[in-house]
Amino acid sequence: MKQVKIFDSTLRDGAQGQGISFSLEDKIKIVKVLDEMNINYIEAGNPGSNPKDMEFFKRLKDIQFKNSKVAAFGSTRRPNINVEDDKNLQDLLASGAEVIVVFGKSWDFQVTDIIKTSLDENINMIKDTIKYLCENGKKVIFDAEHFYDGYKARKNYALETLKAAEEAGADVVVLCDTNGGTLPKEIYDITKAVKEQIAIEIGIHSHDDMGMAVANSIMAVEAGATQVQGTFIGIGERCGNANLSAIIPALKLKLGYEILNNRNLENLTKTARYISEICNVTLVDQKPFVGNSAFAHKGGMHIDAITKAPKSYEHIAPELVGNKRRFLVSEVSGKSTILQEIQKIFPNISKDDTSVKKITDRLKELEYEGYQFEGAEGTIELVIRKIIGKYKPFFQLNHFKIIGEQPYGSEEFSSTAVINITVDGKSEMTAAEGEGPVNALDKAIRKALEVFYPEIKQARLVDYKVRVLDSESATEAKVRVLIESTDGIETWSTVGVSRDVIQASWIALVDSIEYKLIKDIERKVKAYF
Amino acid sequence: MKQVKIFDSTLRDGAQGQGISFSLEDKIKIVKVLDEMNINYIEAGNPGSNPKDMEFFKRLKDIQFKNSKVAAFGSTRRPNINVEDDKNLQDLLASGAEVIVVFGKSWDFQVTDIIKTSLDENINMIKDTIKYLCENGKKVIFDAEHFYDGYKARKNYALETLKAAEEAGADVVVLCDTNGGTLPKEIYDITKAVKEQIAIEIGIHSHDDMGMAVANSIMAVEAGATQVQGTFIGIGERCGNANLSAIIPALKLKLGYEILNNRNLENLTKTARYISEICNVTLVDQKPFVGNSAFAHKGGMHIDAITKAPKSYEHIAPELVGNKRRFLVSEVSGKSTILQEIQKIFPNISKDDTSVKKITDRLKELEYEGYQFEGAEGTIELVIRKIIGKYKPFFQLNHFKIIGEQPYGSEEFSSTAVINITVDGKSEMTAAEGEGPVNALDKAIRKALEVFYPEIKQARLVDYKVRVLDSESATEAKVRVLIESTDGIETWSTVGVSRDVIQASWIALVDSIEYKLIKDIERKVKAYF
Repeated sequence: MKQVKIFDSTLRDGAQGQGISFSLEDKIKIVKVLDEMNINYIEAGNPGSNPKDMEFFKRLKDIQFKNSKVAAFGSTRRPNINVEDDKNLQDLLASGAEVIVVFGKSWDFQVTDIIKTSLDENINMIKDTIKYLCENGKKVIFDAEHFYDGYKARKNYALETLKAAEEAGADVVVLCDTNGGTLPKEIYDITKAVKEQIAIEIGIHSHDDMGMAVANSIMAVEAGATQVQGTFIGIGERCGNANLSAIIPALKLKLGYEILNNRNLENLTKTARYISEICNVTLVDQKPFVGNSAFAHKGGMHIDAITKAPKSYEHIAPELVGNKRRFLVSEVSGKSTILQEIQKIFPNISKDDTSVKKITDRLKELEYEGYQFEGAEGTIELVIRKIIGKYKPFFQLNHFKIIGEQPYGSEEFSSTAVINITVDGKSEMTAAEGEGPVNALDKAIRKALEVFYPEIKQARLVDYKVRVLDSESATEAKVRVLIESTDGIETWSTVGVSRDVIQASWIALVDSIEYKLIKDIERKVKAYF
Repeated sequence: MKQVKIFDSTLRDGAQGQGISFSLEDKIKIVKVLDEMNINYIEAGNPGSNPKDMEFFKRLKDIQFKNSKVAAFGSTRRPNINVEDDKNLQDLLASGAEVIVVFGKSWDFQVTDIIKTSLDENINMIKDTIKYLCENGKKVIFDAEHFYDGYKARKNYALETLKAAEEAGADVVVLCDTNGGTLPKEIYDITKAVKEQIAIEIGIHSHDDMGMAVANSIMAVEAGATQVQGTFIGIGERCGNANLSAIIPALKLKLGYEILNNRNLENLTKTARYISEICNVTLVDQKPFVGNSAFAHKGGMHIDAITKAPKSYEHIAPELVGNKRRFLVSEVSGKSTILQEIQKIFPNISKDDTSVKKITDRLKELEYEGYQFEGAEGTIELVIRKIIGKYKPFFQLNHFKIIGEQPYGSEEFSSTAVINITVDGKSEMTAAEGEGPVNALDKAIRKALEVFYPEIKQARLVDYKVRVLDSESATEAKVRVLIESTDGIETWSTVGVSRDVIQASWIALVDSIEYKLIKDIERKVKAYF
């Protein structure tokens, strides 16, 4: 049975990514979902460098882990002091983590020019630190920082640092491509050479500065590495760390490694989206395996072939990783795509049903007006429902007014929206101020609807795009507004077109809200039957 | 001298990406910038499948290319017909493209189960098509679709398709990992094996379904491929095509290939951002080499080390690819570029003039707020004039109000703008209705100003673009509005940024009008002296 251990550093190296900042509660959520996913090691922080991390390790003691081991991260002892006098090491022990990750320098240049000590002292620092932690009952992973750069600069010294770690009692030595500048073939050759010299387990830690971190991780495994470090959705310093949500399925489905279990793999997409939510980053549509477009087909020829045999344009079945196949309804695509869209919602409707032609005509008409349905499955579903007759409006708009104003004597511009709606015979009038007219309108309609549908609160916009169509007509041109919304469980997109940016936004906004309310009803129905 | 040819398919395979749709003008802009970048081949479309593409090829005949060759893409002839009777092939010839890319099946399963013909007939289709195109004076590139899957399924047949192409006269055979499911080591081994069997040039075409397309392209080159196909910013079907903006610097800086020239490489970041703008996609911050965060450092230890020696946490100098180091705070733009802009208007101002620093600081500040000055020469000139003191406002805005309304009992939405301005102590108040708030405001301000400056009538907007910055903040996000105007003599662009689309449009609109009035004065002055 081929085995590889997965090591997640979302909470440590991931936290170095631009715009990332975790609350204590965020961290607990992430730790729990990683444990649920059967991730072998969770690197939870650097207790010596950060008092908040120490606090977090204390909280972790109360959590019962089912699958994962918690690791604390820190440096080798400082030059020319005893391990007992190194506060960082004492903090690592005090964290209570079962596994300690110690990073040390493997590149001679980093020793002499950055930490400014001798090459011999650096070796002693590695040995002393690991020995001390082992004596205190810890399992030690040695992160050989800049290993590949070090190997290329001064091979023997780089190897010496690994051997020092091995002798001192480390369980694993992890070869780090800290700067992300090493090519896959170099990774393979160097890792293979190391494997011949080192008896303990070898790991790989790579960065994505050339867009090759996933491939580099796989290459290291093929050369003999048995631990892969990364972050679940690839966040991290600069271009990010190796993206585990791509590495895991590649190892399991392409190379047959025993990692996670099949049920875990089916939760891959859901978990990646959940972690993105907590990190407050957008999971890029093109993200391998877990992105919204990872199994989205647009070319007509591709769609025809997929209908005949999915493997013709899909390297794996999307269900294996909990993702979905999508056919992007675009100008290029024909009736069969639309039928598929209909059957997703109403499986019993056949291609000869009269509604199919009506829906096709309506979608074409809308496309002619400037709509684009790629990815806008929310709007497509509503068009289909309206024609099939499985739709009733959730509210009636009586009136809205938007006032944008730069008042006399002021240079500030402000926007206010006033709205009046009716639900089940009851009217609600309200107003909201916002950043611009669309934001004001968005706030006002939600405020009015929450009175009747409190579940609206769960939904929020995550993306808003404006595209001027036929921009040569300048401000008279039509605009297409695409809105992406989420309720934390599902993400959906809706689209609106008008000569007026406010009206186009309004159309997309209403579809987004109605789609959410329909899905809530569906979930309730499912729960009962 | 190690050489690799770069082949860009942004306009063909890239157009298959979700949300991508190019106007004719967009395509022309992309072709020009790729030619400028010294890209060897530009695949411009599929003339047989799409009348719009054929139209575009006609337009391309008028363009003088400095560096690139234009390629047209199409299929091998259909089964069981003559090449002369195949409309697609006639369209390929009619396109006038110097290079023809023919794709054909290399995976036996695709032949028998998808296009449903015999394995022999497929070989004939490849041979006949390539021979016919060669006889008509074309350089032919054969895209062996699904080659790696085909090789793994039935090696001899896959090789036979390549040999058929070679015999028939193809210049290059391109091995395609169409489904993106092949691992880097497989790519390397298979490409190397093919290299031993095929005498003509070999290319690589990979997809990013496992996040390995960049690495796979590099592996193929290391195994002997001399053409790399991809899209400049990685757009394409599903997870996208191989991202050339990562492959180009890796080949040049890490492997020493002769591609582009150094000046081109310094334009890499600028070009990637420009193409993203045209595609209306957000260039992800983490994008290798060209992303906003590609050289952004957050960790304190990293920043300390970088200050001592950049190579400690940067695998290349960011300037080599025209990107910038950031310590996750400020923006820096080139002083010499700004000096050039200043000297265009005020040739006597030298680089030591105090205004140069002031202007640089102001432009940086605006960039930080989300402005982008590429092409917005109108706004740049006004910023410069305001700081140098060669500016006085043409009017004073006292007040404006915009009312967007869907009245009770109506489904029509209407927009009205009310404006009050003062020129030389005289006030003018007026109102206008328009297609949306921005159009209403545009009409109202022109109506008011025409009273004082009748020459305003000559000017009109020819382009209006809205770009949502940081679209994750949805309707609260900042928007950048770019306006292009003309008076029939000159064309100029201006830009405005705000959280409010109306205010952003207003800023750009005022700059546009003031620029026009300044140019009119200059022309009058020139006519007298």
